[in-house]
Amino acid sequence: MNSLQNKSCYFCDSRVIDKEEVLQEGSCVFLSKPGYNPKGVLVGSGVIIPLAHRTSPFELTAKEVVDMFKLLKKVKHYLDEKYQPDGYSLGWNVGKVSGQAIAHVHLHVMPRYNDEPLAGKGIRFFLKQENNKRQSAAR
Amino acid sequence: MNSLQNKSCYFCDSRVIDKEEVLQEGSCVFLSKPGYNPKGVLVGSGVIIPLAHRTSPFELTAKEVVDMFKLLKKVKHYLDEKYQPDGYSLGWNVGKVSGQAIAHVHLHVMPRYNDEPLAGKGIRFFLKQENNKRQSAAR
Repeated sequence: MNSLQNKSCYFCDSRVIDKEEVLQEGSCVFLSKPGYNPKGVLVGSGVIIPLAHRTSPFELTAKEVVDMFKLLKKVKHYLDEKYQPDGYSLGWNVGKVSGQAIAHVHLHVMPRYNDEPLAGKGIRFFLKQENNKRQSAAR
Repeated sequence: MNSLQNKSCYFCDSRVIDKEEVLQEGSCVFLSKPGYNPKGVLVGSGVIIPLAHRTSPFELTAKEVVDMFKLLKKVKHYLDEKYQPDGYSLGWNVGKVSGQAIAHVHLHVMPRYNDEPLAGKGIRFFLKQENNKRQSAAR
């Protein structure tokens, strides 16, 4: 399935794709580890990646973004059926400063549930904490 | 500029767009409040929205997603020049459970900086906290 464009890349390794749950739409796939964190808040979480090796969302082609959003609708339908979440957090970490651990762009798809202690908190929540002031802000 | 499709919607109100910094690409605009949180970690933050009223990323048209990603590249160039961030966090909150405060889809664009205390943490960081176990997980 994968073209193994970058042998040192986790997501370019077709063995990764073979062992995960996969939905596909053209140039993009959704990967989700079966049983991943089954008792945590991230039940049903996965990632959407382009099969081609791209580092960040800024490099995606027009075809890839169109495929990605078609796939995102499929993924929502699949996860809604399987896990009945109450909403989603969706997004990319870009660069080490943002915690991007694998240098192949991956859209995190995180089902959210009303019975989470942090239900109602969004992806900016932790960044807005009082204790996350930049050193330069104290100048 | 805006078509005021939904009079009760914050982002459909053209007065909002008139008072923010704006970059545009076809059907989408980037909005950033001048001086928004100037001493916090979110310096340079803004949102990309479609001009048409859509609730979630699942409803975006193919044209809108292509425009959005063209715009995202422009926005990165603009923010890189203006603020020199070290990376980005990008994403959507979908639904109240995910903290979506305005029911008009908006992609959060958050420059990240190496001098943040939480540098290196990504958008899944807070969801993975030990104290965010779902009630149903205790069953």
